Amino acid sequence: MFQSNKQDVAERHRDNPLITPADVKPSRDDLEVIGAFNPGVFEYQGRIGLLLRVAERPHQEPGYISTITVHPDSNQLEVKRFHGTDPYLDTTDPRVIQHRGFLYLTSISHLRLAWSDDGEHFQIEPTPAVFPEGVYETYGVEDARVTEIDGTYHITYSAVSDHEVAVSLATTKDWQHYQRHGPILQPFNKDVCLFAAEDRSKYWMIHRPSGVMWKRNWMWISESPDLAHWGRPRCLAQTRMEAFDSARLGAGGPPLPTNKGHLEIYHGADEGHRYCLGAMLLDQADPYTITARSPKPLMEPIAPYEQKGFFGNVVFTDGGILRDDHIWMYYAASDTVTCLARIPLRKVWKHLEI
Amino acid sequence: MFQSNKQDVAERHRDNPLITPADVKPSRDDLEVIGAFNPGVFEYQGRIGLLLRVAERPHQEPGYISTITVHPDSNQLEVKRFHGTDPYLDTTDPRVIQHRGFLYLTSISHLRLAWSDDGEHFQIEPTPAVFPEGVYETYGVEDARVTEIDGTYHITYSAVSDHEVAVSLATTKDWQHYQRHGPILQPFNKDVCLFAAEDRSKYWMIHRPSGVMWKRNWMWISESPDLAHWGRPRCLAQTRMEAFDSARLGAGGPPLPTNKGHLEIYHGADEGHRYCLGAMLLDQADPYTITARSPKPLMEPIAPYEQKGFFGNVVFTDGGILRDDHIWMYYAASDTVTCLARIPLRKVWKHLEI
Repeated sequence: MFQSNKQDVAERHRDNPLITPADVKPSRDDLEVIGAFNPGVFEYQGRIGLLLRVAERPHQEPGYISTITVHPDSNQLEVKRFHGTDPYLDTTDPRVIQHRGFLYLTSISHLRLAWSDDGEHFQIEPTPAVFPEGVYETYGVEDARVTEIDGTYHITYSAVSDHEVAVSLATTKDWQHYQRHGPILQPFNKDVCLFAAEDRSKYWMIHRPSGVMWKRNWMWISESPDLAHWGRPRCLAQTRMEAFDSARLGAGGPPLPTNKGHLEIYHGADEGHRYCLGAMLLDQADPYTITARSPKPLMEPIAPYEQKGFFGNVVFTDGGILRDDHIWMYYAASDTVTCLARIPLRKVWKHLEI
Repeated sequence: MFQSNKQDVAERHRDNPLITPADVKPSRDDLEVIGAFNPGVFEYQGRIGLLLRVAERPHQEPGYISTITVHPDSNQLEVKRFHGTDPYLDTTDPRVIQHRGFLYLTSISHLRLAWSDDGEHFQIEPTPAVFPEGVYETYGVEDARVTEIDGTYHITYSAVSDHEVAVSLATTKDWQHYQRHGPILQPFNKDVCLFAAEDRSKYWMIHRPSGVMWKRNWMWISESPDLAHWGRPRCLAQTRMEAFDSARLGAGGPPLPTNKGHLEIYHGADEGHRYCLGAMLLDQADPYTITARSPKPLMEPIAPYEQKGFFGNVVFTDGGILRDDHIWMYYAASDTVTCLARIPLRKVWKHLEI
């Protein structure tokens, strides 16, 4: 059921993609689902759960381009429609609509649960788990990472609005009731995962600020005594010239616990927006220190569904789990679908040359 | 000694500018001081102290443009020299040098103390108080704000490097020995001031993140139990269309304590980069709530030294103090010099229509 290839160490599931937009019921009849991707991953009561990012847009009428936002007070969806021939309309990037100096997203995302007993076959819930609400989420909620700490699941996600992209937190114990905590990190930040010291004396957050002057998209790390207040922000990892991560990089899911340290699978992109996955090993006691980092991609967009889609040439992960000395990596391809690959830990160590 | 005018409520000191670059001894003989501005303000042992931003650059040779950076390991200054005719050189913004896709600053800043018994005549120390050091300050330290809490002076400042602009903290009790705490806020943030609840049960920080997607430069506020870890970031104030603060805004110094609440003097700029000062009143118990805000500028660049200089049409403050029901506002003009204006509190209340 997993197939090796010669280009990278990932063994892709032969049924990939496991989840496509066609598998997901839209949240409203007049919307279509165009993405079911970037899932946070967790285990709950013996099952594997995915918290998918579901991207929706209005059914497109000929001659028009329409998108939607959420009203910050009523939390109701509002359709925004442009004439396709509007000379002020710029749709060169499929992810955004630029119009008269203003920026809209082409779709709005919410978070949706999918469940599996075996980790390979998923049932997708018919309604959203976390739907955008309030002033910080008028353009949607995206890219959840899930960290379980002592029975509470911490969901960090991108909160998108004209306040820019902030990171918000929601928590749940039962995946039915959610507590929304609002922003925990001001803009411009994304790609946040939380993790805890074994004795709970400290918590860490990897995050990815973006800068307006030097256009940096580097990974940072901060620490917390209580998961609510964060300090000592420091740069964890920079882009590397002429490498697969030359233009931007950011955390995947929460680091996986191994006997060599915290194993973080991250995404790196080059100037051509080709997204690969790499690995970095963080010191067990002091995760501010990187002890090893991928010299080349751990995983590259090589399968057809990884090269073509809404935004092609992308593999991107928000989490994986450890099973029998393998990483079961849930990942998204082409900003469209959800896939699974297996990576033996021994191949990761060899790749990291440790 | 203070003069009123008809355009704004600020009474400017007749000896303005009080401090010019010519008054400041460079930190090295081969450098020239081009700015002595944006001072943090505090009271210490009966005197008024200013923590100036002193901007320096190498003496410019004909035909060349030179700037300096600090080496992150040795902390030594390093001169960078460009041919004036280099076709890849872009010097249209006087604050930055753009060359082959890379960005340098035209000067490097450190922080320097100046002392006064009367608040009007200042003695400037001959050597820097806080000089850039380490990887987060290779392009300098800028724009200090000073908050005294129980005998410890907290200095928040912009730490500039190719990591972008972060905010770092230094503390001192005697203005001779400094503890450097490194970044307390990751990029891209500026314009940070700290303040404390009267009973020290909570601390607040006003900050100004910048966003890469919608190009927002809005004021945010966060809270802390310990001055080291920060949480609950929320947007405090947005730009306003067609107002003096239509393009960007950020905190001045720490809010002044008044019987109507925390009085924050802030800067706002429009699309033409004209910087004015405004006032906002924050609720005493909950400074996340603004109870009043300037309908028009409290202070505008109208004096000649406020309109012409390194970067003209700028009034900018990093702090003021309350004296006899007046704000003694120390402020910078044209990113070059340091000035003083007095504003009667009653005129602020009238201006705020409260």
